[in-house]
Amino acid sequence: MAGFEPSEEVLNGKTADVYFKRTVEILKAEGINPVAVMEVFPNRPGILCGIKEALALLEKVLPRDKSEVWALSEGDSMASKEVALRIKAPYQSYGLYETAMCGMLAQSSGWATAARECVDAAGKIPVTSFGARHVHPSVAGIMDYAAITGGCNNCSSIAGAELAGTEPAGTMPHSLILIMGDTVMATLAFDRNMPPSIPRVSLVDTFKDEAEESLRVAQAMGQQLASVRLDTPSERGRVTAALVKEVRARLDQAGFGHVKIFVSGGLDAERIRWFVDSGAQVDSFGVGSYISGARPIDFTADIHEINGSPIAKRGRIPGITNNPRLQRII
Amino acid sequence: MAGFEPSEEVLNGKTADVYFKRTVEILKAEGINPVAVMEVFPNRPGILCGIKEALALLEKVLPRDKSEVWALSEGDSMASKEVALRIKAPYQSYGLYETAMCGMLAQSSGWATAARECVDAAGKIPVTSFGARHVHPSVAGIMDYAAITGGCNNCSSIAGAELAGTEPAGTMPHSLILIMGDTVMATLAFDRNMPPSIPRVSLVDTFKDEAEESLRVAQAMGQQLASVRLDTPSERGRVTAALVKEVRARLDQAGFGHVKIFVSGGLDAERIRWFVDSGAQVDSFGVGSYISGARPIDFTADIHEINGSPIAKRGRIPGITNNPRLQRII
Amino acid sequence: MAGFEPSEEVLNGKTADVYFKRTVEILKAEGINPVAVMEVFPNRPGILCGIKEALALLEKVLPRDKSEVWALSEGDSMASKEVALRIKAPYQSYGLYETAMCGMLAQSSGWATAARECVDAAGKIPVTSFGARHVHPSVAGIMDYAAITGGCNNCSSIAGAELAGTEPAGTMPHSLILIMGDTVMATLAFDRNMPPSIPRVSLVDTFKDEAEESLRVAQAMGQQLASVRLDTPSERGRVTAALVKEVRARLDQAGFGHVKIFVSGGLDAERIRWFVDSGAQVDSFGVGSYISGARPIDFTADIHEINGSPIAKRGRIPGITNNPRLQRII
Amino acid sequence: MAGFEPSEEVLNGKTADVYFKRTVEILKAEGINPVAVMEVFPNRPGILCGIKEALALLEKVLPRDKSEVWALSEGDSMASKEVALRIKAPYQSYGLYETAMCGMLAQSSGWATAARECVDAAGKIPVTSFGARHVHPSVAGIMDYAAITGGCNNCSSIAGAELAGTEPAGTMPHSLILIMGDTVMATLAFDRNMPPSIPRVSLVDTFKDEAEESLRVAQAMGQQLASVRLDTPSERGRVTAALVKEVRARLDQAGFGHVKIFVSGGLDAERIRWFVDSGAQVDSFGVGSYISGARPIDFTADIHEINGSPIAKRGRIPGITNNPRLQRII
Amino acid sequence: MAGFEPSEEVLNGKTADVYFKRTVEILKAEGINPVAVMEVFPNRPGILCGIKEALALLEKVLPRDKSEVWALSEGDSMASKEVALRIKAPYQSYGLYETAMCGMLAQSSGWATAARECVDAAGKIPVTSFGARHVHPSVAGIMDYAAITGGCNNCSSIAGAELAGTEPAGTMPHSLILIMGDTVMATLAFDRNMPPSIPRVSLVDTFKDEAEESLRVAQAMGQQLASVRLDTPSERGRVTAALVKEVRARLDQAGFGHVKIFVSGGLDAERIRWFVDSGAQVDSFGVGSYISGARPIDFTADIHEINGSPIAKRGRIPGITNNPRLQRII
Amino acid sequence: MAGFEPSEEVLNGKTADVYFKRTVEILKAEGINPVAVMEVFPNRPGILCGIKEALALLEKVLPRDKSEVWALSEGDSMASKEVALRIKAPYQSYGLYETAMCGMLAQSSGWATAARECVDAAGKIPVTSFGARHVHPSVAGIMDYAAITGGCNNCSSIAGAELAGTEPAGTMPHSLILIMGDTVMATLAFDRNMPPSIPRVSLVDTFKDEAEESLRVAQAMGQQLASVRLDTPSERGRVTAALVKEVRARLDQAGFGHVKIFVSGGLDAERIRWFVDSGAQVDSFGVGSYISGARPIDFTADIHEINGSPIAKRGRIPGITNNPRLQRII
Repeated sequence: MAGFEPSEEVLNGKTADVYFKRTVEILKAEGINPVAVMEVFPNRPGILCGIKEALALLEKVLPRDKSEVWALSEGDSMASKEVALRIKAPYQSYGLYETAMCGMLAQSSGWATAARECVDAAGKIPVTSFGARHVHPSVAGIMDYAAITGGCNNCSSIAGAELAGTEPAGTMPHSLILIMGDTVMATLAFDRNMPPSIPRVSLVDTFKDEAEESLRVAQAMGQQLASVRLDTPSERGRVTAALVKEVRARLDQAGFGHVKIFVSGGLDAERIRWFVDSGAQVDSFGVGSYISGARPIDFTADIHEINGSPIAKRGRIPGITNNPRLQRII
Repeated sequence: MAGFEPSEEVLNGKTADVYFKRTVEILKAEGINPVAVMEVFPNRPGILCGIKEALALLEKVLPRDKSEVWALSEGDSMASKEVALRIKAPYQSYGLYETAMCGMLAQSSGWATAARECVDAAGKIPVTSFGARHVHPSVAGIMDYAAITGGCNNCSSIAGAELAGTEPAGTMPHSLILIMGDTVMATLAFDRNMPPSIPRVSLVDTFKDEAEESLRVAQAMGQQLASVRLDTPSERGRVTAALVKEVRARLDQAGFGHVKIFVSGGLDAERIRWFVDSGAQVDSFGVGSYISGARPIDFTADIHEINGSPIAKRGRIPGITNNPRLQRII
Repeated sequence: MAGFEPSEEVLNGKTADVYFKRTVEILKAEGINPVAVMEVFPNRPGILCGIKEALALLEKVLPRDKSEVWALSEGDSMASKEVALRIKAPYQSYGLYETAMCGMLAQSSGWATAARECVDAAGKIPVTSFGARHVHPSVAGIMDYAAITGGCNNCSSIAGAELAGTEPAGTMPHSLILIMGDTVMATLAFDRNMPPSIPRVSLVDTFKDEAEESLRVAQAMGQQLASVRLDTPSERGRVTAALVKEVRARLDQAGFGHVKIFVSGGLDAERIRWFVDSGAQVDSFGVGSYISGARPIDFTADIHEINGSPIAKRGRIPGITNNPRLQRII
Repeated sequence: MAGFEPSEEVLNGKTADVYFKRTVEILKAEGINPVAVMEVFPNRPGILCGIKEALALLEKVLPRDKSEVWALSEGDSMASKEVALRIKAPYQSYGLYETAMCGMLAQSSGWATAARECVDAAGKIPVTSFGARHVHPSVAGIMDYAAITGGCNNCSSIAGAELAGTEPAGTMPHSLILIMGDTVMATLAFDRNMPPSIPRVSLVDTFKDEAEESLRVAQAMGQQLASVRLDTPSERGRVTAALVKEVRARLDQAGFGHVKIFVSGGLDAERIRWFVDSGAQVDSFGVGSYISGARPIDFTADIHEINGSPIAKRGRIPGITNNPRLQRII
Repeated sequence: MAGFEPSEEVLNGKTADVYFKRTVEILKAEGINPVAVMEVFPNRPGILCGIKEALALLEKVLPRDKSEVWALSEGDSMASKEVALRIKAPYQSYGLYETAMCGMLAQSSGWATAARECVDAAGKIPVTSFGARHVHPSVAGIMDYAAITGGCNNCSSIAGAELAGTEPAGTMPHSLILIMGDTVMATLAFDRNMPPSIPRVSLVDTFKDEAEESLRVAQAMGQQLASVRLDTPSERGRVTAALVKEVRARLDQAGFGHVKIFVSGGLDAERIRWFVDSGAQVDSFGVGSYISGARPIDFTADIHEINGSPIAKRGRIPGITNNPRLQRII
Repeated sequence: MAGFEPSEEVLNGKTADVYFKRTVEILKAEGINPVAVMEVFPNRPGILCGIKEALALLEKVLPRDKSEVWALSEGDSMASKEVALRIKAPYQSYGLYETAMCGMLAQSSGWATAARECVDAAGKIPVTSFGARHVHPSVAGIMDYAAITGGCNNCSSIAGAELAGTEPAGTMPHSLILIMGDTVMATLAFDRNMPPSIPRVSLVDTFKDEAEESLRVAQAMGQQLASVRLDTPSERGRVTAALVKEVRARLDQAGFGHVKIFVSGGLDAERIRWFVDSGAQVDSFGVGSYISGARPIDFTADIHEINGSPIAKRGRIPGITNNPRLQRII
């Protein structure tokens, strides 16, 4: 997959912990290059993500004829300490990349796992990943790809949508409305200028009470309006289940039963579950920092065999760890 | 600073939330391009980091003659909701970059703030950032740069050290010892092959009890040995204050008072404080996922003025927010 | 004080526990009527209220020449178990009224104590008692009188204001606005029809966002507008400190610095303190069920002396309890 | 029902919040009197009480030919936010009484709900309401009526028993025993002077240990003694389950198996359940401040329709709320 | 049973509370010696122990022809307040021994109950009592006897094993290894000098890492080695489940599948359950202060009948308490 | 001190852990008997007790000319892990006694520490140790001696008083009163038959309410009555501060100001502090199972030097630990 090509910085070791670079230098100087089996496992359960990217790196660097690689699949559930990746190859060929491989798995699995929690809480209601603004742009696309791997329907960043092979999703920012000076005018401008394939979703909390603005926009847009998005700031008490129920009722009473309700703002799995349990009819959730700010899942890489002999550091069990779920990749 | 040049993906909007791209398209189609004042602030207190990178982006895209930019400095403390960046410029020139700018600030400030907590807890004892392995390689360098901005003495990734203008630091991985088959042999090989400027720090928990291994290495290396590193895994009860005290005492009793003790493994600010309070004489701390896995500090970007008129969305106060700490950048 | 005349039902013993009626009947039948000293004390600390009413009852029923009464004053602080009322009189003259006297003291002291907590939390900001709607109309006036005794500036019920010798205070109900169909129209109608002495306070959360409605009303009423009242329902996240700050700023920016802000809705001492600490400039608080729904402070009435001889039931100490704060009333 | 006739003070609006009086004045001055639908609902679940009294008021003030009223029944369980009362009538005819109606429902439902909790905890054991002494005498009867509505078998106040159409219940106060100087003498005096229909219940904790006093009274009264009442003060450790068991055993051993045990003093639902679970054989519970000091259940009255058009304030859903449990009253 | 012969100090009343000695003196002086029934019961549930010793004392002092004794059996479960011992005899014959009998039951039942908790947690894995070092040597044997009564397989004290009719169990102390200077040498010395019936259990945490030491000892001892004992001090993080798993794996990989693993050090019922749940294969647990430092179970001795008449102090029920589980002993 | 002579069972090793006996046998067989330094320290802070007994044992078994012993003193405070005893002697002479010495220190220090907590809580009010009935008679005396070492004024067991060189203290048991049938008769019988040196303390909760019984006894005994003891069982709510205040007041009112009040029953340091803080005038406290059931303070004995060379097991620091508070004993 083109999107997961390792960067020059990764390949030349710039992103590595310096001690791995030194280790490979020392081993070269000493002329030592055993076939070593390295096993990589997470320190807590979750959804595996980043493995495609890690394998793309390994394919680039391993000597095919002397190497074997086994792995779980992107999106698989994994238990705590379950081996997710096993490499058997001459150590000098891959030792430099331990930092990069663990990092790919750690952050992507953290994101995918948090996304899965939200998706599970939402049941059949779709979840969009909205958190690109909380991570560095260099990983915004990877983050959104991981969110989709974890179960999100789509994402707001263009890069993430490309990696995931889908279309980016979004509504409109408060900026557009502030610049246009009115929510209805902004929504009409959006409608005038955007291709028909993009759903018309109006953000209805900028200037007026959400219920009032929803009706104004619906009256102006009629059947063209796909959804209203409630994103009430904490200064106005966040989006509540009662607000959703009331907007739904007022839209229905005014004949706009076709307009859907999209909820965002400070959502996490627990808050989503609260909405679902409240009986409020939400049609879509947008989740930001709960996914994009998720803690990485630490991965550990241990050598378990050298030139066919079991070995391990204190605290680990020597020899290959049995895991029938692993599939041979290389 | 060369290291903070915006990437092609950032400049062409690939990493943006798609709705910003659409907003700029709509405004262009409608022929609207007001001078808008945007203010960017964090949702909790912390150490500001990423502002250099954000400014490098703005310098690239803003029309100099029509723009003004004010900001706090890299490494400054910031209060909750304090404006850290203010942009006054034609909206079309920078609207596309809200996602990227917020993302740079959010993740880097999160890392720098976590680093500062550890550094404060450690007092005069130096702290090294060891967490590159828990983040995606695309941000490993940025993360380590932020850790150093937050107060760490150095870091393990080569890319991070380059960004921070320092040398990378590290000891040796368990892999080297496992491959060499013995800690003493690995340490001697390290000593044989590395330039003298690199301190000899031996990792002493791979095969034998730490106290025993420390003495073996010290006897083999003598005055050449700079430090021993204790990194006991949780399976062996992690590094304890009592272990540090005992290793210190045994090294001293054997005449190796010059050998320092480096502690790593599951450290966070609280655990560092516990070591400091215990009276155990640690000479250096290595911190991993507590820094690199820190939650981003969410930043919000709000428009407060359009063509000279105060404005704001519900929940925010219209007009420019006074903050005398801001300095004019552009 | 006319307002505290005992009712016919109290005087004829209808409101008494039946066993007191029976006790007096038995004593009459047996021809026993000792001079008994009864002491009345609260089971937790608080503000004494209801003592004027209790004394008005005693003045009606005690034989002046054979009786003595000591008491603390309305509004006094009292310690737990401190004697607040001592009666020395022939038992048959007052035994029937133990239930009524304890009840007057219990509920009024409970209300006054809760009011005092809110007043203390509010500091110099006035507090209005708004909770008549949560108590039975037979005690609505007494409740509001107790709230004012506890420190409230005024109250909403007419009966309470009469008892306290002040004017009732209030703004306007949502009903008026719903019937008039618009907040501005309702406020103008209020202004047209009410005497000038009644301050114009507009309730601004009925149809539109509070900030928008505040500006509309201020523009329509100009200098005539005294205050806006924020009473946001929990479905819209209650009144927040940020809302107060924003409304204040928007009113000031539009030249309505003279318009004050009145806050109500789910307030208690803790929430008032939170507003005060937040720096939001509230000009008046309205407190409802925290005062009117306050638990009564239980009072106990014990006989401590009979015909000059100390006596007490198990658990109490025989003889008169020393309390130099008591003042001779009868 | 005669007992629920609205008082003069209620009818002339003295007990109302002043702003309702003003609202009606304004509407009259403006000549506006729409048919408005008001719905009244509680903010937490409970037992409805006070509805008879509220309906008695409405019957007095509504124009029969232009009005409709629906309600739940006295003693019904109600869910949180369930509509318990719906009024459709010209607003001027009833607007003034919102405060009084809500107050009747709030306090009476609070009392009935607390009573129900105790009755549920007690299972088949009867519960007597003993808390008249903790509320103002103006509501003592209403409180006891509500307690009986909630499930209590009877009550101690004469007024409450009249309202509920039953006989007041009670034992004897400590005063009688203190004045008579001995529990046996007091009990014999009671027996001499009270009609046979009143059960002989002796209070056995005034001078001596409860077990000793129980036996003395039983020996003196023989078959005439109905019950002993244990009301041990907290200074003597309150009534315990062990005390009940022991008194039961000692009475049985002495041949007084017919004497029942009545327990009172600081009881609430939890303590009653504890007694029941302990296996101690209590024959009757007397509950005071847990019922009479119960927090009111706040009721809200919202206009949902004006002249046939749905309307509502922000936070509520316009139009009539469906509740098939409501019954047409007027 | 010889081991439970009462000591001279017990028989002459030296260990009694002085007031019992005085009571018997007074009764003798007054010539009063009724047949009194005393019942002895625990204040919380547990395992009865010490009853054999108490009965041995009673057999020595009671006049057989005038006495009856009923009791539960050593090791029986007992409910809270269940009568475990009933004595009917002339009071002067046994009044002096109340202190001693209660003390025997209290401490022994406390120990047996704590042992039972560990044994229940361990399931089929044997538990050894190792806590003699935490109690006074005068009760070390009694304590170990009680631990075995509670379910332990054996104990470390010689006196305890004698009382329980079994062999004492133990491994070797750290002292032996420190004096021999090496764990292997100490183990070989043990093997040389101890009779074959004593299992060879080597303590493997004195000088080296436990996994390394286990393999060294196993290699030196071969089939002679029965077990290794892990007793890692808290300074090295206590014994963990991961350590057990690793030692098991390394022993198995090296062909020493016959060597068992004995775990000790800070164990209690909760920690034992944690080991069992972890899946680590422990073959034996050694428990110290959790058993030997267990709180005694307080026993109370009450007189319930005197010369055939029921009697009791306040708080207890007069007459004999029915307990069909009691068996007639004397 | 004669009372601390080691018993035959201790001297012959019966009470030892069997592995110490085996160790000494092995060392004898191998002809190894180094001079070893053993240090003994507690695992938590407390009051040292049992050291006199441990030293009496060492004096009996150590070869004076080859041995040195240092120790803290009986009753000293000790910090956690502070060395309380250091032995330097040929190992074979004392190795067998490690179990016994640790046990003496552990249990006695546990008792003394709990006693100190009560004594500290009681301030100037004397505390009597009443817990002999909760420990095995073999240690009842030692326990009471430790309680007095911890600060108690006296104790109830005869053996404990002998060890501490004082007189045993006590009142009278419920048995005496039950047998005499009346508290006054029992107290008069006590007075008739006991020597004048023993204070007359009457237990006043057996048959009647404590206040009533106190007055009856005081009237019967007059100036002869020293104290009344309140020991109310939990079935009657335990002794409360209010009960003490009332009994004090009633005694004073009746002219018995000289009669003191002794409180017992379920006391611990926290409850004693509660009494002291309540202002109730208690003259003496009796503490039972809080002291006698105190957890032992575990002691550890480590070898730190062998034939002059520093040594230690893993986790401990080789060589003699500096403690200037130790005093040379042998």
